[in-house]
Amino acid sequence: MSLNATPRGERTHITVFGRSNVGKSSVVNAITGQEISVVSPIRGTTTDPVYKAMEMLPIGPVVLIDTAGLDDEGMLGELRKQKTRELIDRTDLALLVIDATAGVDPFYEELLAELYDRKIPVVGVLNKSDARADAAAAQAEAEARLGLDFIPFSATQRTGIKELKQAIIDALPQEDDRFRIVGDLISPGDVVVLVVPIDSAAPKGRLILPQQQTLRDVLDSNAIAVVTQEDQLQAALNRLAVKPRLVITDSQAFSKVAADTPKDVPLTSFSILFARHKGDLNELVRGARAIEKLKDGDRVLIAEACTHHRQSDDIGTVKIPRWLREVTGKQLQLEHVSGYSFPPDLDRYALVIHCGACMLNRRAMLHRIAETQAAGVPIVNYGVLIAYMHGVFPRAIELFPSAMKAWEESDGPKK
Amino acid sequence: MSLNATPRGERTHITVFGRSNVGKSSVVNAITGQEISVVSPIRGTTTDPVYKAMEMLPIGPVVLIDTAGLDDEGMLGELRKQKTRELIDRTDLALLVIDATAGVDPFYEELLAELYDRKIPVVGVLNKSDARADAAAAQAEAEARLGLDFIPFSATQRTGIKELKQAIIDALPQEDDRFRIVGDLISPGDVVVLVVPIDSAAPKGRLILPQQQTLRDVLDSNAIAVVTQEDQLQAALNRLAVKPRLVITDSQAFSKVAADTPKDVPLTSFSILFARHKGDLNELVRGARAIEKLKDGDRVLIAEACTHHRQSDDIGTVKIPRWLREVTGKQLQLEHVSGYSFPPDLDRYALVIHCGACMLNRRAMLHRIAETQAAGVPIVNYGVLIAYMHGVFPRAIELFPSAMKAWEESDGPKK
Repeated sequence: MSLNATPRGERTHITVFGRSNVGKSSVVNAITGQEISVVSPIRGTTTDPVYKAMEMLPIGPVVLIDTAGLDDEGMLGELRKQKTRELIDRTDLALLVIDATAGVDPFYEELLAELYDRKIPVVGVLNKSDARADAAAAQAEAEARLGLDFIPFSATQRTGIKELKQAIIDALPQEDDRFRIVGDLISPGDVVVLVVPIDSAAPKGRLILPQQQTLRDVLDSNAIAVVTQEDQLQAALNRLAVKPRLVITDSQAFSKVAADTPKDVPLTSFSILFARHKGDLNELVRGARAIEKLKDGDRVLIAEACTHHRQSDDIGTVKIPRWLREVTGKQLQLEHVSGYSFPPDLDRYALVIHCGACMLNRRAMLHRIAETQAAGVPIVNYGVLIAYMHGVFPRAIELFPSAMKAWEESDGPKK
Repeated sequence: MSLNATPRGERTHITVFGRSNVGKSSVVNAITGQEISVVSPIRGTTTDPVYKAMEMLPIGPVVLIDTAGLDDEGMLGELRKQKTRELIDRTDLALLVIDATAGVDPFYEELLAELYDRKIPVVGVLNKSDARADAAAAQAEAEARLGLDFIPFSATQRTGIKELKQAIIDALPQEDDRFRIVGDLISPGDVVVLVVPIDSAAPKGRLILPQQQTLRDVLDSNAIAVVTQEDQLQAALNRLAVKPRLVITDSQAFSKVAADTPKDVPLTSFSILFARHKGDLNELVRGARAIEKLKDGDRVLIAEACTHHRQSDDIGTVKIPRWLREVTGKQLQLEHVSGYSFPPDLDRYALVIHCGACMLNRRAMLHRIAETQAAGVPIVNYGVLIAYMHGVFPRAIELFPSAMKAWEESDGPKK
């Protein structure tokens, strides 16, 4: 357990696929065994994949997903397919492991086609390359059949590890291609004001993670952060000799902060930045508009990516339902799902409300948004919903022209 | 496991003492059972106490220490005494549990004398008060014999919990009496500049805990934090319309930051603030001076409060020994201890170098400093040692007149 644990959703997901007995777990162990900061594996039932979190320099925090459980012969074909699809949904990079002494079969062709279809980079691993004298021939055969390069590897001899890591680094999208929290909006030397309310819900002696991540992204951008509670915002602005590039506030303080921030200074909220970081802000803004159009009898799906201990004022089962009742005044049918499964019959719903997805990576969240869109159903997440509740629209999205357009084009009544 | 876990050393330590079978564990469970955020207990061997971390409002994060293991009849008397002493060393408040059907005996008198001797507040708990019709008589008898008020309690009936919590709150020192990190040095509306270098060792997307805690203490003080990397410090100062009240930097950037900070702006380091927060800065500053006086053959004790996985460039076993060799040029005999045990024969050493003590509370750290002082041995901690290595003295302690005096009065050669 680390005091500074990276949430799983912020880690690069590397999934290890392959037939039974090709040595997937030993490939994972060979990679993680060289590293210092391996977190204990979390194993659920035997059909659940095993997640191993580690730091892989220079990539940063990754999670290696060992799909050993998927080999279970007792598992029904349909269930296995569904589990594989769910894994692919959240895979940033796939390792395809084959056994040099066994070669490839149609299983690999199908899997590879699906991975390519989903535009997921794949690295081939020829395991047990020490167990066959003509390993080079096996490699050539596999490469010809699948059109994929393979790295000769031996988990037992511990050979090929360095080459495999380099191939992973080369295959992953560059850091710059991925979405920043705020770094793409600011320049070195800019002053960015972060408004952080300290109330009884704030953890003692710390900042909550989204605030930390935003502050860190400001520093990573060589910009300067001014951090203040909302009551000191005006004092903070007065103590600056320059106009800030941007003010970012917690949604709950939005109206006070909006009143104190000059009109020519851009203003947004942590929730909006994270909705953009984690998903498709335009689509989520359209989803917020759909709330006003809900009718009596409409079904609303409240989806959470993880199962967590529910507190008495749980956001998904207590706060959001109460708030929906108050705002819409309608009799809605609320349904709840949690975990990695997303229901297939999404078109039953008038709206999907999704959690902040701290356990899902961006790829998985975008996939869920796309599935919901494909079913013709609007989707909003907790962050945008909370922002909406606190009246941050449209000022908090003026910075983002396409989200602003999505807001203006949605035909809900103007708020 | 929480992503924002409070380190144990920052929690208020409440230790539950009492004879075997008085129901210590059920008292702990009755208290924690009402709370939401109970962390799983960590149990080592049967003789180790069990630590249960929880939030106890309005106190904040506490750890309840269940000393059940100390009852083990198989444990030798001397070992039990030593374990009890170690527990008392880190106790902020003691719960003394007696069994209404059994009453008190000399064990309690001795324990209470030791607790009072160490100025630790004690709350009496009369457990099993439901199991005896004349519980009030038992209470009166115990109170008369020990001179301590007892709260009638029944873990099985779940009565007395509210009263016990109130007694704990009343008995604990007030928040304001405890040491702040930086809050006592600043006023509302002050601008405090935090210099946070982002290097390869910084965890991705986050701030390390001491930086977070300092930033949070600035916000808790209704002051305004300006957070910047060292290369932007000059730009940050130029963008301010006022002079900052204080600049705080990571020790590694000290010389650059000292050059860029105007002489009339106070400057210190996170390590110095934490040495003060966690221990006795004056004594640790004197300890730093002792490094220069080490002679060939001197024994140096390097003490760490927890056992952790040692990395290849481990601070205690690799970095500090290397640095001591370089700076002193002497043949030193380094000895290492880790865990809650502190060797009794401290006078064998010419210097004690203690870790940052994130697993010890302030009380325990102060106790270790006092023990070392009593043995006539200088003590320094990692934070002050690192600050010393980076040449922060004396500028970083000018803010603290008594530490400055300790520095000037130490008769080591001027650095």
